[in-house]
Amino acid sequence: MNELDWLKIKQMAIIWVKEASNQLKASLLETIHVETKSSPDDLVTEMDRKIEQYFLKKIQTNFPTHAFLGEEGISKDEHENQDTIWIIDPIDGTTNFVHQQYNFAISVAVYHKGEGKIGLIYDVMNDVLYHAVAGQGAYKNDERLELLTEVEISKAIIGLNARWLLNDDQPYQPLLVHLVDKVRGVRSYGSAALEMAYVASGRLDGYISLKLSPWDFAAALVLLNEVGGCYSTIYGEPLAMLQSSSVFVGRPQFHEAVISEFVHRR
Amino acid sequence: MNELDWLKIKQMAIIWVKEASNQLKASLLETIHVETKSSPDDLVTEMDRKIEQYFLKKIQTNFPTHAFLGEEGISKDEHENQDTIWIIDPIDGTTNFVHQQYNFAISVAVYHKGEGKIGLIYDVMNDVLYHAVAGQGAYKNDERLELLTEVEISKAIIGLNARWLLNDDQPYQPLLVHLVDKVRGVRSYGSAALEMAYVASGRLDGYISLKLSPWDFAAALVLLNEVGGCYSTIYGEPLAMLQSSSVFVGRPQFHEAVISEFVHRR
Repeated sequence: MNELDWLKIKQMAIIWVKEASNQLKASLLETIHVETKSSPDDLVTEMDRKIEQYFLKKIQTNFPTHAFLGEEGISKDEHENQDTIWIIDPIDGTTNFVHQQYNFAISVAVYHKGEGKIGLIYDVMNDVLYHAVAGQGAYKNDERLELLTEVEISKAIIGLNARWLLNDDQPYQPLLVHLVDKVRGVRSYGSAALEMAYVASGRLDGYISLKLSPWDFAAALVLLNEVGGCYSTIYGEPLAMLQSSSVFVGRPQFHEAVISEFVHRR
Repeated sequence: MNELDWLKIKQMAIIWVKEASNQLKASLLETIHVETKSSPDDLVTEMDRKIEQYFLKKIQTNFPTHAFLGEEGISKDEHENQDTIWIIDPIDGTTNFVHQQYNFAISVAVYHKGEGKIGLIYDVMNDVLYHAVAGQGAYKNDERLELLTEVEISKAIIGLNARWLLNDDQPYQPLLVHLVDKVRGVRSYGSAALEMAYVASGRLDGYISLKLSPWDFAAALVLLNEVGGCYSTIYGEPLAMLQSSSVFVGRPQFHEAVISEFVHRR
């Protein structure tokens, strides 16, 4: 296979994602129906590792020149020139996975020379796949997602975990409180990847997290690129693909308006 | 029809709920596909009233001795003895309804001499009906809900809107902050009825709102009764069926543990 044919690679990745989701669903059924000694946290650790290994093997077999980045680190650079990298979160929303058996996702991204080429976020229990190839549009299952329109801050609904409001010794804290006070509504679903897919598909107008890793947001950025969504740290700095940071994504004008307030008040 | 045959009345109410949900879905389709002059808020006002009138007529026709309580007030006491009252929220989660077209519910309860007899909460877009008749168990579609087990505070996931953390001049505020800090996770979906149905079905361990009206929680309490869920104001006082108040529902031991901290620290 042409290792740069993104549409074909996406089709292959979708098959792997569906297979991985079956493994996750089976593990939940087993845990619910069989009395196990393992705690819920052990299940997360086990399945996180198992699904990551599953993807790693598939990629090594099919795309030996591609690199891999996940929670357990980046694959060894055996090739001189690993321009293409897969960035994967096997279970985004691990607490939801073990506790709710709902609202967790598999997030898969492929970047080439630093640019997002493929983004997949799969809402496992609802069987909803958000997917995009750079320049080819973003989709929610078969439905093409529309370009994001604008929204005023006072009419916006944002995704934000209440936890972030407690860090009252942090410089951003008064700004978050101010924002929560000004927007129309605040929601929290417990999966960063899903919440950013909600932004791409218009269910949320923005999403803020004070700390995310590249595998949490890599796929979402590819989706957002296709619908004109904006993203940065909460201070408007570009996101780095190899380090953790705060993340703020949103509709274009909304993102700009909030950032300018944040930066202004910093 | 026997006006006290709760199982039969529930079957009838389910038919009405499904019909009402079709009207809601149709109104969303129209609003999305036809350019209307009305704002999203007008749509809520219009559909809230329309669905409430729909239920009112159905009840007056089929159960002329029953009373009706909704946002527009209580029906006139034309009969000497209105022991049976329907308490209905036509759209619970109105912001979600207009903004997300997702995560809103129809909530229908029937109380007799102050006791909850029927509770229905219908998640319209997911086609999930939570339903119960007093003493007959609670169900999520066809699946009977199990009795709620216990959970430690440190492992609990609660539903709580981040907004409530901003009222820092209120006596309960430090207690909420303390709780958010101690639990494992906080979620917010924007529909009180759905979030309490999530507690009844185990997806959340607790749910807190600082202000709800009877039509927001009447159906949920019938569900919670059937699975051993507990409910009260945040200070542990009984909920009054004809006035607004704070509401805290949860798994039994979890509810008790949190209330004792709240009352203790009041």
